[in-house]
Amino acid sequence: MTSLPVLLCFDEDLVAAQRIAQAAGLSVSRIDRHRFPDGELKLRLPPHLPDRVVVLRTLDQPDEKLIELLLVARTARQLGAKHLTLVAPYLAYMRQDMAFQPGEVVSQLIIGRFLADLFDGVITVDPHLHRISTLEEAVPTSSAIVLSGAPLLSDLIATKRQQPLLIGPDEESGQWLAQAAQRHGFEYGVCHKTRHGDRNVEIVLPPLLVKGRVVVLIDDVASSGHTLAGAARLLIAAGAASVDVAVTHALFAGDALQVIQSAGVGDVWSTDCITHPSNAVSMAPAIAAALRV
Amino acid sequence: MTSLPVLLCFDEDLVAAQRIAQAAGLSVSRIDRHRFPDGELKLRLPPHLPDRVVVLRTLDQPDEKLIELLLVARTARQLGAKHLTLVAPYLAYMRQDMAFQPGEVVSQLIIGRFLADLFDGVITVDPHLHRISTLEEAVPTSSAIVLSGAPLLSDLIATKRQQPLLIGPDEESGQWLAQAAQRHGFEYGVCHKTRHGDRNVEIVLPPLLVKGRVVVLIDDVASSGHTLAGAARLLIAAGAASVDVAVTHALFAGDALQVIQSAGVGDVWSTDCITHPSNAVSMAPAIAAALRV
Repeated sequence: MTSLPVLLCFDEDLVAAQRIAQAAGLSVSRIDRHRFPDGELKLRLPPHLPDRVVVLRTLDQPDEKLIELLLVARTARQLGAKHLTLVAPYLAYMRQDMAFQPGEVVSQLIIGRFLADLFDGVITVDPHLHRISTLEEAVPTSSAIVLSGAPLLSDLIATKRQQPLLIGPDEESGQWLAQAAQRHGFEYGVCHKTRHGDRNVEIVLPPLLVKGRVVVLIDDVASSGHTLAGAARLLIAAGAASVDVAVTHALFAGDALQVIQSAGVGDVWSTDCITHPSNAVSMAPAIAAALRV
Repeated sequence: MTSLPVLLCFDEDLVAAQRIAQAAGLSVSRIDRHRFPDGELKLRLPPHLPDRVVVLRTLDQPDEKLIELLLVARTARQLGAKHLTLVAPYLAYMRQDMAFQPGEVVSQLIIGRFLADLFDGVITVDPHLHRISTLEEAVPTSSAIVLSGAPLLSDLIATKRQQPLLIGPDEESGQWLAQAAQRHGFEYGVCHKTRHGDRNVEIVLPPLLVKGRVVVLIDDVASSGHTLAGAARLLIAAGAASVDVAVTHALFAGDALQVIQSAGVGDVWSTDCITHPSNAVSMAPAIAAALRV
């Protein structure tokens, strides 16, 4: 048995876990996973755990992973863990924060409380919170830490493009975009978006001179890609010299990347919150710093 | 708003739900489900619910369905439900009831408590309980009702085969098999099984005269099909006139049905706890009777 805090992870997250653990002074342990032919999970944790345990699990395609977390967290307590922290670089279900129609499930609060019931603390990056101002309101733990990919993406853009114009595809990203832009004194603007469905959005560009500009579309999350693609088409039609994309969370569901690229987008950069070929910035140092606090 | 108890179901369970509801005097309401491109669920319940609400959800391929149940149950309470019953004809994770190696997750108790935290009562059919004797020990609700497919399968076999010999593929099914056999005075015996992996099992036939007999292999659950196939091959090699299969839960993962049929099995009969082409017996009347209590 060791008293060094342990970072638990699944095999597919081993590289990311080692990067975080090394910077934060944790030891990494793997969770063995087997899936039975009937779809049930069989999990095995290290047989002894120290007082402080961190679980790394990013929550894209969340449902099966949430059941994994239930099984892992409850078992970790039985095996000795007294303080459990969830590191979920991408935190699922944060966008469904109100019932738009009567009877609609407000998943944000239910999943948030589910996680708060399992973990003493949570660390995430750019959760998509609209109508609440703090993560504690959604995930009521004693320690809910929010990191941001905005400064790192801004730094990356500063090395890649000269005098870029940053454009946010909708108002929701306004404050976050301002933070990224102001870090390097980039000019920026926000589109106006009306959503008619998952893959059907209407976008109006901000009143800025786009002609000849090096534009970077920047957002916290890219899912179907249709919003970014729509904005890119408008920017190119308005005479932009180039349009690249930078996002924190590279969900890129289905053919999203092709949708964006066929709209004329050049480079796509993302943080490693969700593993994806576009990953260009690592959140590991920031996560490690939060774990050291 | 209605005061008649409501049976909530998803579209794919609508036929089964209507059958149960009609027999039990419930009204059926659908839960709307949409899956976002990023894998998140969006659910919508009827906007007003009566005091008593029943949710029908069989739990094969369980992980996503368990998250659905979390979202549905918590929202149903907000919408007025005071007493929530889960009807899960197949109840997942009941087989993992102890840690065979240190650190192994005992899923039965964790999933059982998760469900007990959401529902006031649960009704299921032939849960695969080995080392505990009552469902309440696994799902600690005030009302945990266990129904059995054994008598219905026995009745079916009585109409289909003359003087059958019932064989259980392993000791775990012994008591359940005896119940099915004694109902019609069928002769029966149990194989001895040693498991080396999901799809690798060693089987020894019981000391009974098999030559020329009409055999029905009967079990509570068929998953990979390898146990049933192994037993069928031995029975045919020992001279059985025919070998058919009857199971409560037709999980039949992947190519399980082909595995069984290529071992020489003739007919395959199952209850409708899990929807499958082999369904030959409906549990709806028994479930409805339990709901009327």
